[in-house]
Amino acid sequence: MKIDVLTLFPEMFSGVFNDSILKRAQERGAVELNTVNFRDFSTNKHKKVDDYPYGGGAGMLLAPQPIFDAVESVCQNTKTKPRIILMCPQGERFTQAKAEELAKEEHLIFICGHYEGFDERIREHLVTDELSLGDYVLTGGELAAMVMTDAVVRLLPDVLGKQESHENDSFSMGLLEFPQYTRPVDFRGMMVPPVLTSGNHKEIEKWRHEQSLYRTYTRRPDLLDSRELTDHEKILIEKFKQQS
Amino acid sequence: MKIDVLTLFPEMFSGVFNDSILKRAQERGAVELNTVNFRDFSTNKHKKVDDYPYGGGAGMLLAPQPIFDAVESVCQNTKTKPRIILMCPQGERFTQAKAEELAKEEHLIFICGHYEGFDERIREHLVTDELSLGDYVLTGGELAAMVMTDAVVRLLPDVLGKQESHENDSFSMGLLEFPQYTRPVDFRGMMVPPVLTSGNHKEIEKWRHEQSLYRTYTRRPDLLDSRELTDHEKILIEKFKQQS
Repeated sequence: MKIDVLTLFPEMFSGVFNDSILKRAQERGAVELNTVNFRDFSTNKHKKVDDYPYGGGAGMLLAPQPIFDAVESVCQNTKTKPRIILMCPQGERFTQAKAEELAKEEHLIFICGHYEGFDERIREHLVTDELSLGDYVLTGGELAAMVMTDAVVRLLPDVLGKQESHENDSFSMGLLEFPQYTRPVDFRGMMVPPVLTSGNHKEIEKWRHEQSLYRTYTRRPDLLDSRELTDHEKILIEKFKQQS
Repeated sequence: MKIDVLTLFPEMFSGVFNDSILKRAQERGAVELNTVNFRDFSTNKHKKVDDYPYGGGAGMLLAPQPIFDAVESVCQNTKTKPRIILMCPQGERFTQAKAEELAKEEHLIFICGHYEGFDERIREHLVTDELSLGDYVLTGGELAAMVMTDAVVRLLPDVLGKQESHENDSFSMGLLEFPQYTRPVDFRGMMVPPVLTSGNHKEIEKWRHEQSLYRTYTRRPDLLDSRELTDHEKILIEKFKQQS
């Protein structure tokens, strides 16, 4: 996979793109990550990339020319149709399902604004997707592009080791993870639940499943709506209801 | 405000913490940003920070000792009670309201895991909050801590200029932003809507309001549920319904 990030702040990406999983994924050839400063594509003699909005208003807007040209430049040698993704608070909410969908593509282009809005023609005639991390306001699209890059790249084949991929099993099963404990058994008087050191695997399994269900019930009841509950789970949830 | 980020990958933060708004906010004294490698606090002779889970399972868990000690160390000279925030996919969803709440604090501590889960005693006895960026899986809490830092710090007094803060006006009014255009009027045959170059400010205002409402209606109808609609807006929405 190839990911090109169009940004006015390419140096923001250095720490994240050159460490941990993203570094390893590049070393293994699973992904090629590039940052492209679209200011370099401005045909304006002062390399301006933004301008005042028609109709008035206080903010500046990113003009279409540098961004159209930068996208065309990174597409020059690609045969496959890229997904051209605008980082945008008005966009569709990014989810794990979207990460899985994007992980199947060969070429992603992320377009990051910073302070400014975008000329509507970029939205209407250039991009294939508009995505948002969530309902909060960020200074620019850069952090959103880093988050999406991480979420997508870790899904590519051979990027994660067995151990790293384990953590989220329970999340993808539709329940939140059960509480986990490691050594010491007694940390400043805070104890590990005895069942976990009992060696009785059937009891451990049962305890973990109940804990997962209870945590999901209290924290994310919405996840239970989309789950087919077993009879045992239904009985447990009745019990939680009576306790609360 | 002071923000301490506890992480095993402090170098990931360099690009983001030393650029743009976060750089400026530190220069202006609005915020002090620190990264703390909690591996430095491990009392294990090999500086280990993780261990196997009791009861079995494939993943590793971050042990309580290095994290408890690192938190106590960064709290040593603070008189105010910090918010100690665990980056965690099971946590409460981060929102703009949460960013505004955190922006009122004097001291935030973000705890980032990476691959591993956390020993439950950290969750139960140390942290004050567990937060999640959204329903997607990331390699670690580092990107989440960067996102939350950006969202919070830009709300601090004197951090944003007038122009930068403008962009989100319409979002905070409960409607998505209207389409915006800048020069040229004709970009490769894609035209700016004539109303915006008409000079008729009343018509421009009307067009923008309709466009905002239409965009919100098509993309984020949930935002309209929590809005008190004017009679004019109700008529427009009826029109949208008939058109679709």
